[in-house]
Amino acid sequence: MVATHIHDVSTSGQGDAHDLTAVVSKAVGGSGLTAGVATVFVVGSTASVTTLEFESGVVHDVDRALQQLAPRAADYRHHLRWHDDNGSSHVRAALIGPSVAIPFSAKRLMLGQWQQIVLLELDTQPRQRQIVIQLVGE
Amino acid sequence: MVATHIHDVSTSGQGDAHDLTAVVSKAVGGSGLTAGVATVFVVGSTASVTTLEFESGVVHDVDRALQQLAPRAADYRHHLRWHDDNGSSHVRAALIGPSVAIPFSAKRLMLGQWQQIVLLELDTQPRQRQIVIQLVGE
Amino acid sequence: MVATHIHDVSTSGQGDAHDLTAVVSKAVGGSGLTAGVATVFVVGSTASVTTLEFESGVVHDVDRALQQLAPRAADYRHHLRWHDDNGSSHVRAALIGPSVAIPFSAKRLMLGQWQQIVLLELDTQPRQRQIVIQLVGE
Repeated sequence: MVATHIHDVSTSGQGDAHDLTAVVSKAVGGSGLTAGVATVFVVGSTASVTTLEFESGVVHDVDRALQQLAPRAADYRHHLRWHDDNGSSHVRAALIGPSVAIPFSAKRLMLGQWQQIVLLELDTQPRQRQIVIQLVGE
Repeated sequence: MVATHIHDVSTSGQGDAHDLTAVVSKAVGGSGLTAGVATVFVVGSTASVTTLEFESGVVHDVDRALQQLAPRAADYRHHLRWHDDNGSSHVRAALIGPSVAIPFSAKRLMLGQWQQIVLLELDTQPRQRQIVIQLVGE
Repeated sequence: MVATHIHDVSTSGQGDAHDLTAVVSKAVGGSGLTAGVATVFVVGSTASVTTLEFESGVVHDVDRALQQLAPRAADYRHHLRWHDDNGSSHVRAALIGPSVAIPFSAKRLMLGQWQQIVLLELDTQPRQRQIVIQLVGE
């Protein structure tokens, strides 16, 4: 009914993105579940998981829009608290969210052909990320 | 435990929005499930599903904010790759996300009175959209 | 398999935020479920639930970014319909979304140390908010 997978990813910092589709597909295929929902969740408050067409142009375009929404070099109250420099990371992650839910049926993710499950690294430094793939179904 | 419904929608392109609440409610009511979560997911990388008060003013206001966040006429790297004109669509969809999860109980969605489940078409052209309604519960 | 909790929160209006982590943790711990997904959903179309590092600096920084994305004092079509003043609230809530899905395992939420589950009040007035915590698992 429930199958839990943990997947570790090393990132290079803000603007980096990783395609998780193959890992999630494999988790679904090997779970013994036929139909349900795959919740793909990143542990931490400075990264996000979403779907997008995973090609370098889209990844760059998303980063540029986020740079406008929450510029890396701006002043953030969060910086005053911890002397961090990742206020932009926290704002971006809160707005996009930590998880995405993808239905699966007949043991396959119901994604579009140009739709991949993607980790967006939003932190200003390289990070070790833990991805939880939680499958709930039958 | 799991019930899967597919719903097709024809859209008119960027700025178009469709209220999916009645379709999802009917799927819940006819599923034999009493309580659980309805995951409403759009297949593809240039549309999103969210909740909002479905009236033309809010739909227009959301579109205007998205036009500021990712202007349709701007330059996008994605355009260089495929000679597409829908870079704005990809950026908007990645930030809003492809799905929303709505709890249901006593065979009814636990939405607010002014809260509808809405497909936002973000692509620059009319599209045929496939909506997956995945119910997981008991 | 499914456990439903309702939690009520009184908010002070736009910019207010409430940490829901302890309430959701307690719901998971007392549910009899070991592993699954906690869907945390706010009823209504002018508030959102997400994860963030719950400290006043980040809360302020998120509010400031939202003020740029959908300024409170701007003109909104929604205002013309109902003579409301909360067009900014509707736009912000539609873009962030009403819910977040958090995996749990061994009866514990799989959150990061600095990652809390947070209600963002986006309406211009104080509100009574109903939070649905829907647990699906085994």
